[in-house]
Parts: sequence; C-alpha cells; structure tokens
Amino acid sequence: MLRDRIRCQPLLDKLCTADEAAALIQDGMTIGMSGFTRAGEAKAVPLALAERARKQPLKITLITGASLGNDLDKTLTDAHVLARRLPFQSDPGLRRAINAGEVMFIDQHLSETVEQLRTRQIPPVDIAVVEAVAITEHGGIVPTTSIGNSASFAILAEKIIVELNLSQPTTLEGLHDVYIPSRRPARMPIPVVTPESRVGLPYIPVPPEKIAAIVVSEKHDSSSSILPPDDETRAIAGHLKALLLEEVRQGRMGYDLLPLQAGIGTIANAVLHGFLDSPFHDLKMYSEVLQDSTFELMDAGKLTFASASSITLSSEMYRKVLPRLAEYKHHLVLRPQEISNHPEVIRRLGIICINTALEFDIYGNVNSTHVGGTHMMNGIGGSGDFARNGYLSIFVTKSLAKNGAISSVVPMVSHVDHTEHDTDIFVTEQGLADLRGLAPRERAISIIRNCAHPDYREQLEDYYARAVKRGGHTPHILEEALSWHQALKETGTMRR
Amino acid sequence: MLRDRIRCQPLLDKLCTADEAAALIQDGMTIGMSGFTRAGEAKAVPLALAERARKQPLKITLITGASLGNDLDKTLTDAHVLARRLPFQSDPGLRRAINAGEVMFIDQHLSETVEQLRTRQIPPVDIAVVEAVAITEHGGIVPTTSIGNSASFAILAEKIIVELNLSQPTTLEGLHDVYIPSRRPARMPIPVVTPESRVGLPYIPVPPEKIAAIVVSEKHDSSSSILPPDDETRAIAGHLKALLLEEVRQGRMGYDLLPLQAGIGTIANAVLHGFLDSPFHDLKMYSEVLQDSTFELMDAGKLTFASASSITLSSEMYRKVLPRLAEYKHHLVLRPQEISNHPEVIRRLGIICINTALEFDIYGNVNSTHVGGTHMMNGIGGSGDFARNGYLSIFVTKSLAKNGAISSVVPMVSHVDHTEHDTDIFVTEQGLADLRGLAPRERAISIIRNCAHPDYREQLEDYYARAVKRGGHTPHILEEALSWHQALKETGTMRR
Repeated sequence: MLRDRIRCQPLLDKLCTADEAAALIQDGMTIGMSGFTRAGEAKAVPLALAERARKQPLKITLITGASLGNDLDKTLTDAHVLARRLPFQSDPGLRRAINAGEVMFIDQHLSETVEQLRTRQIPPVDIAVVEAVAITEHGGIVPTTSIGNSASFAILAEKIIVELNLSQPTTLEGLHDVYIPSRRPARMPIPVVTPESRVGLPYIPVPPEKIAAIVVSEKHDSSSSILPPDDETRAIAGHLKALLLEEVRQGRMGYDLLPLQAGIGTIANAVLHGFLDSPFHDLKMYSEVLQDSTFELMDAGKLTFASASSITLSSEMYRKVLPRLAEYKHHLVLRPQEISNHPEVIRRLGIICINTALEFDIYGNVNSTHVGGTHMMNGIGGSGDFARNGYLSIFVTKSLAKNGAISSVVPMVSHVDHTEHDTDIFVTEQGLADLRGLAPRERAISIIRNCAHPDYREQLEDYYARAVKRGGHTPHILEEALSWHQALKETGTMRR
Repeated sequence: MLRDRIRCQPLLDKLCTADEAAALIQDGMTIGMSGFTRAGEAKAVPLALAERARKQPLKITLITGASLGNDLDKTLTDAHVLARRLPFQSDPGLRRAINAGEVMFIDQHLSETVEQLRTRQIPPVDIAVVEAVAITEHGGIVPTTSIGNSASFAILAEKIIVELNLSQPTTLEGLHDVYIPSRRPARMPIPVVTPESRVGLPYIPVPPEKIAAIVVSEKHDSSSSILPPDDETRAIAGHLKALLLEEVRQGRMGYDLLPLQAGIGTIANAVLHGFLDSPFHDLKMYSEVLQDSTFELMDAGKLTFASASSITLSSEMYRKVLPRLAEYKHHLVLRPQEISNHPEVIRRLGIICINTALEFDIYGNVNSTHVGGTHMMNGIGGSGDFARNGYLSIFVTKSLAKNGAISSVVPMVSHVDHTEHDTDIFVTEQGLADLRGLAPRERAISIIRNCAHPDYREQLEDYYARAVKRGGHTPHILEEALSWHQALKETGTMRR
C-alpha cells in the first residue's frame, strides 16, 4: 500500500515518525505548512511539534495557505509555538493571542504571500510541511484537498517534510494543476484563459533529495460548520439573483453568467445554494474554496466546472462527494492560491465576486476583519484579491448582528479592508444597493434605503442629513463617525 | 498642410467650427473626452460647449482619461455644464463644486473606467471628443500627448469629434500603442511582457464614417507646475535610494532595478530626479505620466525606456523635448491608461511604485484624496492600480504640512484609499519605514520612529501606548482616533 503511494523508491528510507520529523524544526525557523480553509493541512507534524514545545520551548514563524483544521492553530498557540503567523487564520484561541499582542499576525491578500517569499522580501521558508496523497516516481508531491501555498513552500524551502495521509483518497490524484509564474524580469502571461484551463503539472515538482522526512497519517480533514440557509440568507440570495437576471436582461452576460467566486462561510454558501432555484445554467466557478453548494449545483446540473484552491465540505457532503470523486474530477481543478486568486486571471475572466462583510458604511467601504476597529477576527483572506479585480464586487451580510444590537451598516467603518473604489454591490436581507456609477452622496442614499435594517434607517438618515450640511464629497461628522462603535462598547448597543 | 494631417480624403468634408461640432452635444449626453494629466485634451470643443451653455443651459456627464489642462474643468464648471464627472480631476473650481454636492464625482481607479463602459455597467458614451495629431488614410485617429481613455471612447461612442491640433508636432505619430483587451468570455492575456513591448496599433482604429466632425485647433497643452526639488524632497529621494541599494545588495534585483512608476506631482518628480545621482543605470519606467524627471534621466543616460499614458512637462522641458521628439521616440511608448495601469501587467512586470500620500496612519493606511476625511482634493487616480499590484508599494510625503499645523502621520487616517494590506514602504524627509512582513504593532513603532516629524512623535507615541493598553491586533482609541483632524478644524493645528 505504501509503495503505491511512495513511488520514488529511495524515498521509502525517509519514512519516520512525526516526532522524528518535527525534530527537524528548530527554534526561530520559518515553516511553510499546507492547509487552506481547514483542508489539506499537515496534521501529525504540527501536533508533534506542539507536544515537544511543551517540554522544550521553541518559537517559529508559521506560514500557511489559509486557516488550518483540526484545531491546529489552537494547539500551536496553546503550546506557545507561534511567534509570527501569516497570511490568515480563523481560530478563536489564536485570535485571542493575536489580539493580546502575543502572536504577530500579518494579514495579507492570499495571492501575495508567495510573491514576497519568492523575492525574499520576507524571511525564507526553512522547512515545508506538506500533506500529500502520493509521491510520484520522480519525487513529485501530489497534494490532497488543497494546494494553497504548498507548491511554492516546497519549491523554495531548504527541506520538505511530507505527510502522507492514507485517509485521503488516491482519486485526488489528477485534480491539481500546479503552475508557478516565471521569475521576473522575464515573467510571461499566466495562460489561464477559462476556469477549465490546465496549465501546469498534477503534482509539485521537487528534487526528491529535498524530501527529508515522510510521515504517515490517517487523520481526516475537519468538516466545515456552515449553517443551513435561513430566511435572511434566502432573501439575500433572492436579491442577488434578481440583480444577475437584470444583467442578463441588459445583455451584459448570458444565462451562464460569468465565472463565480464565493467567499467561505454560511452566507456565501447560502447565496450559491439559492442558484439551485434560478434560470441560470452552465455556470462555472473560479473561486478559492469549494463548499457544499458547489457540489449541490453540480449534482443539479447547474454548474459545469469549478476551479479553486481547496475543497471544504460538511461531514455529510464529504460522505457523498469523496466516494464519487472520480466522477467529479473532470469538472474540477485545484490550483495554487496565487493562481486561484491572481489579479491577472480574475480581471481577465471577469469574475462575479461574492464576499461577506463584517460591516460596511454608507459610502461603500467594507470592514472584513476587525471587530470594533481593533480586534482581529480572521483576516482579509482572498476577498481583496477578488473584490479589486472582479467584474462585479459584491458584499453580502445580514443587516443586523447580536440580536439587533449591531447594525452592519454604519456611518463609517471602524477599519477599512475594501475601499469605496473597490465595491459595486451590497446586499442584505433588506435589499440590494447597486453603486456602479454613483457618487458618494448617491451611494449613501442607496445603501441606507436598500440595505440598512429599518431599526437603524432613521438613525443613519439623521447622521447623513447632518453630515451633508457640513459639505464635502463624502460628508461626515468626524467626531461622531465612529460613535456607533463606541456606543456598542459602552452601552451594549448601537441603538440610540 | 491639412491634407497631410487628414489623409482620409472624404473626411475633409467634416471640417467645421468648434461651435458647429459642440452643437452635436445635447443635454443629458455622456461625453468621453481625451486628456490625461493636462496632456492631450480636446481644447476647442469644450470651450465652445461652455460658451453655448451660458446662453442655453445643458448638463452632461463628462468622462476623461484624468485631469484636463487649460482650465477646462473650471470653465465647464463655471458654465454649469457638468452634472457628473469621472474618473479624476484636479481643478480648484470643480473641486469646490464637487464638495458642495453640485457635481457628482465618481473617483475611480484609472484602469477601471473603460471596463465599466465596455460592459455597459455605466451609461454609454454618446460622443467622443479626441485631440489628434493626424487621421490616417483609413480614418485611424493618431492621438497627441496622451492616450488616456480616448481609444475606448472613440471605439464605443456613437459619434466622434476629432480636434486636429496643429500645434502638436507630427513627430508624435508612431509613439502610441493602442491595444484593447478582447471581449470576455474569450479574453486573452495582454501580451505586454516588458515596458518596451509594442502590442497594438499606432492609431485608434475607427470606421471613418463615425467621425462626425473635425475641428482644427492650435492651442498648446498646459505646462505642469511642479516645484523644483528642495531639501526635504532631496531627503526623501535619499532614503529611497538607500532602500533600493539595499534591495540590490540583497540580490533581489540588479542595478537596473525593476520598472519604475511615479505618481504625478512635485514630490514624485523630485524623487526620480534624485536618481540622477545614483549608481542605478539602464532604468526603465512603466508609469502613467512622464514628467520632467523622465527626460532628465534619459538625457543623463540613466533611463533607457519609458512607457506611460501621457507626457506632461514644464514649459521649459517642453521647449527642450518637443523639437527632439524624433530622437526620444525610440525610447518611449504611450498606451491606453487601461494598459499602462493594468493590474495584469503591473503584477507581471513587478513595478516599483512611488505615489504621494495626503496623510498616512501609524498602521500604514493611506489617504490620497480627502482633506479632513470629507473634502475631495483630486482623486485616487492610478495610485491604487499600482500600489495594489506592484512589487514595492511606496508612499512618499513630507512629514508636515501647513507650516507644521498638520502632521502627515496620524493615528487613523480620516479616509482610506490604500489599506494596510497594500502598502510596503513609507518615506518622509525624516526617514523610511519598511513594513514588509511586519504586524500592525510593529508597523506603528516603525512608522512613528522613522517617518513622523519630531514635533509630533511624542504625541503619536502617547496615543499608541494608550491604545495598546486596550489591546487588539490594531490598537486604537476609537473616540480619539480622528481627534487630530477635529483639533485641526477647531484650533487650526493638530498640535496638542
């Protein structure tokens, strides 16, 4: 069985325990680990590393694709292993440490990390730890349910630790398309011209001698914990479908639309789920994560192809999809996140980008990351890669949070991740604001009228009316602009 | 003479006066006019239009490349012609009208306007008014000192008015490279792979029958009004040269660096001027505007090639350059602003991007547009196109403004145009903060220490120290974050 998965004979000598592999990791090193939105992360070595750190303290810089599953960020945080962490995370324990200033977190556009590594603008990766489903006869590493930054980590690192995960089905082989942009100043265009374009190799090409250790594991990916659609997410999906139908009616696209991207999480998943009941057909995705809705749409014959950097499903959907992977494989491709999120490709294909906002303001600026303007939630992830360059930059959220104590529409966001220049459409369960071609004063009126919850509409209108009296292209009352967030902190509600 | 410039014989019949041409423009129309940073704008027709509007009121949506010269935005504003204006302007009179809410201004990334026009996401251009140096025998329009959005305006408009400017030298012919991205969903890569790449036509291809009027003019472009380098801009240039030398020393690039972009204005021009006295050589520019410093560097043998969308010079430099244009031509190319500023090309080439900030905050967010968070100055222009996708995103400014009443480094910017995710390096005359790989708490320390003026350093340190006590990934005191701007308004200074 192992020989089927490790086809490069000499590498069989590299088999070792997770503890032995983890021993290669030294204090102060930069480690690049596979894993993107709880999919395909190395599982055994980080655990062994945390175990060792409890006896023998050590600190590393940990770079991944995106968030890790199996509570690994929590375990590593609890063992005080993380000095620095980039480019994304979503763990409550790590979040606490970041907000306490104990872990230095660099919150980056997901497409950018390997650009900085490749040019050594940030310290180089000493060791790459990559989960694989197999190693080819020439040492090529076949990733599992995500690629993330793994290919560049492996190519750039001094040494590679492979975690061969026997629970990941070998049918994953052939799913991946590993393309690395050529070095500047002779970089050529990335030849991806449709979501289906295959332009690279189905494995990560590395010299076998760089593989320093191979650890066998059998642990499953964590399943996603998205909530089922509810009335509000159904309403959001409804508004969005109406918008896209109008785009079709205006002749801007056909019923096959343009390639779709949807951020991770309950709302974006619910929005795509809503497309099941729509006149759209022959849809394609060019996204970063494939969630349950992707496979629902494929099963329903609505979606013909999906490109992404990872697959993250609910446990129920895993049980359905994994046994039938060979069937789905011809309709799927996994790419390095640099390519799934590449500005060049996103602009070329004209993606319809659907991402979730934590809050947005009356002028269309979006906060995706910071609670109360100061405390990190997860990170910007790929939302900026897509929102900046997409055909349509759509942000969705429910108009209220915390049982109505929080309005998702505020006078001024407390932290800006996406500026007014980068956003086109806002959707809440209340309705949709289409900001294309509108000036700030027009945007404010549209957002308040269409997106704000009725409980806060008057309060927003009052702010805006008083701000306009002071004048300006983007009217604001500076001493009051962030007062809603202060009120929430002091009184427990944004309500006046 | 006219026959040399209008080589498509039947078009000679279209010669008319500016008044006759302006009569084609009707109330409510969307007009696309040439002009980018005071270069190559149509000069006679807008004046005639303003004249007519004084007797017979009319309103239009005016789209240009960027800012217009010859006070045209002022004249059109004074005649109340402008209902809407995009994507950039820099006129004090228009600015006043925008901030009073009289003109709806849409402040866009310069690369994006024609994407929205092409897909009819914003209302279509009824008439294009394009300054030309000649019309080819098949009706191709040869632009003058800028291309901006003129090519797409002409291609997409119902009708075209050509302003044949006899004062623009015919040696401009051959300078331009007009490439229009193919339509989605079959868009191909943009084949620009070096600043020198020529991938299109030296004229704007249009069916001659779309040319509805040809007006002859002889008015010159406005000259730029940049100030000469001073001690502070020299210090900024010095810090930046030291940074780039270190990049070379680290092996990240050679002495030819990577292609340079510099925003318009005194500081960016002075920074490039500083490269005259540097060990760098065989430099290239991939920028949006070529200023005096471009030609100084070429004359000094430092710069071998420059690509941009316009040429805007001081009157002195115009007198030097225009007679020798035939010599420079082999080292220059002018492109549509969609291509000069295209995310795909900027990312591919790995541009070193130098843009001016109005203010920036201790975490590296930049305000490029709004005075006091509310009042529009000029617009974001191309700074976002470059900063998001460049190899190095550098922002420069003097640490003080208004004789020290304003600190350019503030706790929180009053408006965000470039987020912390998009900025790498900040430079003032005080020094340079290199934020690559740094978390917000580290960024704050570096920015305060290296960039803030000593007069404000303690005040910033005090803010930051108290903010840190409240915790968070990005520590802030929300009720105080914008208080510096309020203090300026109320007391005339940010000084405590």
